[in-house]
Amino acid sequence: MSDLPKSVDIHEEGPREGFQIEPGPIATADKIRLIEALADTGLKHIQVCSFVNPRLVPGWADAEKVVAGFKARDNVDYTALWFNARGLERALAFKDKLQLTGSISLTASEGFTKKNLNRTHEENLAAMRKQTALHLEHGVPVKRIGVMAAFGCNYTGDIPVDQVVRTVEDGFAIAAEHDAEIEIISLADTMGWAIPPRIEKVLGAVRSRWPEHTIGLHLHDTRGMAVANAHAAMKMGVAQFDSTVGGLGGCPFAGHKGAAGNICTEELALLCEEMGVATGIDLDRLIEVGRMAEEIVGHVLPSELVHAGSLDAFRRQVA
Amino acid sequence: MSDLPKSVDIHEEGPREGFQIEPGPIATADKIRLIEALADTGLKHIQVCSFVNPRLVPGWADAEKVVAGFKARDNVDYTALWFNARGLERALAFKDKLQLTGSISLTASEGFTKKNLNRTHEENLAAMRKQTALHLEHGVPVKRIGVMAAFGCNYTGDIPVDQVVRTVEDGFAIAAEHDAEIEIISLADTMGWAIPPRIEKVLGAVRSRWPEHTIGLHLHDTRGMAVANAHAAMKMGVAQFDSTVGGLGGCPFAGHKGAAGNICTEELALLCEEMGVATGIDLDRLIEVGRMAEEIVGHVLPSELVHAGSLDAFRRQVA
Repeated sequence: MSDLPKSVDIHEEGPREGFQIEPGPIATADKIRLIEALADTGLKHIQVCSFVNPRLVPGWADAEKVVAGFKARDNVDYTALWFNARGLERALAFKDKLQLTGSISLTASEGFTKKNLNRTHEENLAAMRKQTALHLEHGVPVKRIGVMAAFGCNYTGDIPVDQVVRTVEDGFAIAAEHDAEIEIISLADTMGWAIPPRIEKVLGAVRSRWPEHTIGLHLHDTRGMAVANAHAAMKMGVAQFDSTVGGLGGCPFAGHKGAAGNICTEELALLCEEMGVATGIDLDRLIEVGRMAEEIVGHVLPSELVHAGSLDAFRRQVA
Repeated sequence: MSDLPKSVDIHEEGPREGFQIEPGPIATADKIRLIEALADTGLKHIQVCSFVNPRLVPGWADAEKVVAGFKARDNVDYTALWFNARGLERALAFKDKLQLTGSISLTASEGFTKKNLNRTHEENLAAMRKQTALHLEHGVPVKRIGVMAAFGCNYTGDIPVDQVVRTVEDGFAIAAEHDAEIEIISLADTMGWAIPPRIEKVLGAVRSRWPEHTIGLHLHDTRGMAVANAHAAMKMGVAQFDSTVGGLGGCPFAGHKGAAGNICTEELALLCEEMGVATGIDLDRLIEVGRMAEEIVGHVLPSELVHAGSLDAFRRQVA
């Protein structure tokens, strides 16, 4: 366990991931309330919205109102997501409040690229070249290569490790063409295909090829494996994870209804803290925010911990 | 990973654990339907009921009707639970249909013993001495030492590893007094305090002390850690787990409402099968039984996998 990191960076994506999938409209004020409460837990990275076409994702029609509305803390990075020139333009209007960085977003499964983006892998590479150039023109650094479906795909099945490595290579080729300096390789288990040995294999291959780069993981708990996968990754030294409070989210395009969302921030944080890996998060406060998230969406969220309470809360009762 | 077992024994406890905690009455016919469906999945050990005082656990007032009613498969062990002489007497009436074995059931936390049984540890040891003698008088072998709250307790907090070892020692002392031959040491994370390193520490201490005995784990998913804990245990060679289909169950005495139940059988089975550890279970059929369990209890169960479907189901669509 010597590779266990001393601390991990948790990137909270609950507001963005969660509210794009909820069937009912979520009030702008509730989104703002959740973002502000999350920042009060000690989280340092919060993705607050998605600048997407409101006709396609009605849940984010109020992205501007949300970003304008929340009170920012100095020591928190607030980020957003966008997919095209129009989205970037909307994000740029908030460049003083949001930390804008670009991503070369690829998918290890062409089947999923077709389904999710209606593009071939080649077409997606072309789109990413164009988008990378556009980001850099606007002074937005492109630091990240993201690979979706890196552990398997509902439309393609198992994904060979080589294919993940080739997809990351494609990302680096685009970065090199544009002199973009990549810092992070983010691997996503978009449809919940990972199990710990698969995490170990894919991470091992990517790390040995790019030993100088940070690896981040974006895990979904679609089949209940996310915490076990995070644990396996931490033992390999991975120290950056995306997650969502309460387990908000899920993938609307993943081909199955009712699929669980991302790994729960509070369960990931409990695992870390109980193992002595610092998160900077006040877990009991975060659990309260998980309950707030349930109240806002109006239904029970996948997090078990939100219903059970932290171990420290019980330890304090005993002491 | 050389200690990973080739196969694991999964002991399904969904009918017994699940139906004792559900607030509404479950029809006897539904209990029987679930037991028979579980036996059709390849599961070889199914705990079918609890012979408890119907005034205390009204959900099992129909234990006799359930046991009399289900059609038994030859190659499946059907077991039951009881806590006293009256319960044993009721179980003995079905000694041809049920596999009756006794257990020396102890708790590593006196606080929980008081809360759960209203006994001190010493009083519980006395009760277990009496019960062990009673079992053996009736020809029921006592093969198992069970330790509840082996990884922590909502009423006592952290449980030192030594205390778990001493509790197992107490069990062996009772067994020795009565010439009972113990085969299995079953450790229960009754209130969801375990994380993988704690699993490793406790298992390591118990195994090094009793290397000849099988260790079984009874994990609850109270804080979302159960699959990670099972994975850590399997890597140490543990090959026997209790679980419940759909994640039925939970502990009504654990001091928090809405706590998740046991580790889900289907998530445990998916982890095993995807790692090449045989379970003998038809996972897709088991997932169907998880859906049946949800239909019977009338609400969504904690299992994520029941809602997502197996990886093999998607692989078949692709092929």
